[in-house]
Amino acid sequence: MALIVHKYGGTSMGSPERIKSVAKRVAKWARAGHQMVVVPSAMSGETNRLLGLAKEVQPATIDAAAMRELDMIASTGEQVSVGLLALALQSEGMPAVSYTGWQVPVKTDSSYTKARIESIDDARVRAELAEGKVVIITGFQGIDDEGSITTLGRGGSDTSAVAVAAALKAAECLIYTDVDGVYTTDPRVVPEAQRLHTISFEEMLEMASLGSKVLQIRSVEFAGKYRVPLRVLSSFTPWDINIDEEAKSGTLITFEEDEKMEQAVVSGIAFNRDEAKFTVVGVPDKPGIAYQILGAVAEANIDVDVIVQNMSHDGRTDFSFTVHRNDYQRTLDLLKGTVAPSTGATQVLGDPKICKVSIVGIGMKSHVGVAAKMFRTLSEEGINIQMITTSEIKTSVVIDEKYMELAVRALHKSFGLDAVDTSSN
Amino acid sequence: MALIVHKYGGTSMGSPERIKSVAKRVAKWARAGHQMVVVPSAMSGETNRLLGLAKEVQPATIDAAAMRELDMIASTGEQVSVGLLALALQSEGMPAVSYTGWQVPVKTDSSYTKARIESIDDARVRAELAEGKVVIITGFQGIDDEGSITTLGRGGSDTSAVAVAAALKAAECLIYTDVDGVYTTDPRVVPEAQRLHTISFEEMLEMASLGSKVLQIRSVEFAGKYRVPLRVLSSFTPWDINIDEEAKSGTLITFEEDEKMEQAVVSGIAFNRDEAKFTVVGVPDKPGIAYQILGAVAEANIDVDVIVQNMSHDGRTDFSFTVHRNDYQRTLDLLKGTVAPSTGATQVLGDPKICKVSIVGIGMKSHVGVAAKMFRTLSEEGINIQMITTSEIKTSVVIDEKYMELAVRALHKSFGLDAVDTSSN
Repeated sequence: MALIVHKYGGTSMGSPERIKSVAKRVAKWARAGHQMVVVPSAMSGETNRLLGLAKEVQPATIDAAAMRELDMIASTGEQVSVGLLALALQSEGMPAVSYTGWQVPVKTDSSYTKARIESIDDARVRAELAEGKVVIITGFQGIDDEGSITTLGRGGSDTSAVAVAAALKAAECLIYTDVDGVYTTDPRVVPEAQRLHTISFEEMLEMASLGSKVLQIRSVEFAGKYRVPLRVLSSFTPWDINIDEEAKSGTLITFEEDEKMEQAVVSGIAFNRDEAKFTVVGVPDKPGIAYQILGAVAEANIDVDVIVQNMSHDGRTDFSFTVHRNDYQRTLDLLKGTVAPSTGATQVLGDPKICKVSIVGIGMKSHVGVAAKMFRTLSEEGINIQMITTSEIKTSVVIDEKYMELAVRALHKSFGLDAVDTSSN
Repeated sequence: MALIVHKYGGTSMGSPERIKSVAKRVAKWARAGHQMVVVPSAMSGETNRLLGLAKEVQPATIDAAAMRELDMIASTGEQVSVGLLALALQSEGMPAVSYTGWQVPVKTDSSYTKARIESIDDARVRAELAEGKVVIITGFQGIDDEGSITTLGRGGSDTSAVAVAAALKAAECLIYTDVDGVYTTDPRVVPEAQRLHTISFEEMLEMASLGSKVLQIRSVEFAGKYRVPLRVLSSFTPWDINIDEEAKSGTLITFEEDEKMEQAVVSGIAFNRDEAKFTVVGVPDKPGIAYQILGAVAEANIDVDVIVQNMSHDGRTDFSFTVHRNDYQRTLDLLKGTVAPSTGATQVLGDPKICKVSIVGIGMKSHVGVAAKMFRTLSEEGINIQMITTSEIKTSVVIDEKYMELAVRALHKSFGLDAVDTSSN
């Protein structure tokens, strides 16, 4: 018997029928003696519908006042979900009560549409649990000091669930999603990809930010910070499968490093083909150049991912970075228009057809030669590496987009991931 | 320059286009120097959609816990509306901010799905008005002492608007609807029906409860209690009509009796064909009989409208009453099954084909012979009166349904309503 948090995504909540299934699953857990807290997303499509309505009436410039209203509107999707799930649980004969973010309350800052959780008061939730009720809390939202509704941004319900689990010191936070766990890489690219039974939250952070879109990155950060055991599992298993089997399914994201000691050096291969690369050629090698280029890019609200500055020669250097491919033209115009001339650069090169491939593994901390093995593998396949960046548990390369599948498959194989013995994890 | 409350119904808020029109109209009033508070309903169809979703998952028996969830769900319709209207006003360059019932807060009791407003805190709204903003407040809802969302029941947005106007001591509360005012009777029955420029709130109460479904009855009670001048006017006039013309349009519901002194004795003819009549024949004329019959009916949750008990003869009397026609069979079964036998009645007569026609007028207080004139008019048309009830400002008769139109037209004419000079009111 433990305090467990379940989080269900929009697809799981997509229709009255599916909500009934969720209710049956939650009721099964409650009947097994667990104290249950559930954080559901809005019904699939609902947030888009609401923001679509807003788009038709909203001002051209979205200032803070407008963002406050967007949150007022968008937050209703989850409010409907919690009410419906509470009713469905009551239909199952299971006492249940719903809470909005402001009722808990979940306190956030005032950054409308992308607020950050500051604190969660657990008193009311604990009182309801003590009365034997399932407590259902809206994901994605909270309340600021002014008493205005805030939302956490897209995918914020994952973060809400983890934050609630942290506040309640839950034994585990189960994220039900449309995949059955975290894989060594995308199975659509590498059919031999294996589901990981456990992954460290640091690896998960790198995997998530690199495009394994299983969980919202902030929720993983939260889980790591507050040491909340997080499990990603499938919402497509029948609701009445054996609870012990269900409790061990999916992938457990753990903060216990020891558990990983005997594991593979590399846990997964991540990739991202949504990037575009720029090189500002021949800029003078002097202090302030990086800021002069990237400051202007940041001011234009363009996110930069990989940044590489090569060694200089003859007092000049080349400065390269990647941005989201959607920002390609805007970045190019910006660089050619004012930035490059002002730095004295000789040329601006842009390439929207690149991709980033990364190996991720907490084992890299203690194993040498991992990056070298990566480069050798790519070289054997005749793949040219355009940029390289590394961190403690990750090595990323930027390569021509057309080699992406080939690179991922080759790396997946050479790091022994095709053969991961999932039963032993 | 005054503090004005506007209320817009679901049809006015029915699409982004219409919401933009509402925003332009409100902006016009604000630019004319008024402090504006707006109470919009949910977009038309939205509350039904939400309750339809709830119906698919809700338990068979709706207890207080389930009703709390229904309010959680249903209240989101208005929350979306206020956000959209605030955005539309901001698009017009008009500073605007939305408030939910709980943010104001609008305090209610805990009667979920039919809560009553207990108090409204005007501090935050006044502060926003003082900053030059249009304040948009959700209709239909509030918050109870536990911090749970409550709703006021169908049509509750009218009541919210009036309550907000009362709390803010607004100069006038304008209810924009799909009719252009209150008429002497239903123009579909009597083409000569005239729009009233003013009507007393007492007359409006009688008209509303008798089926002139222009305003929710509770909103009129509220307006009377707090002496809020209430105007019913059309939301179909172009948003840019002259504001002085608009401010005088529709029907003003006033609490100033003097204004009515010179008016017609009868202000309107109301009717209701949704009723059914019962007579319990030959019950012993002794204390407790009325309670014995109506107590059982009330316990079955059947609303009784007109009640008439005739003089007794030979120690027995006949007891008649009307109920909603939908409750006809249930009432008949109840009376024949247990109630009538237990009272010693000789017979139960039921008639689902009746209607009620009423003359309403505050002038009746000081004029004698009004009822007699009504009876004479009906007699001249050969219409038999089955039941009669009277109050201070209303006389109602129950007649055969097939004579309804005839009776309404004849009464409308004989009380001089065909000839109401609307320009002098």
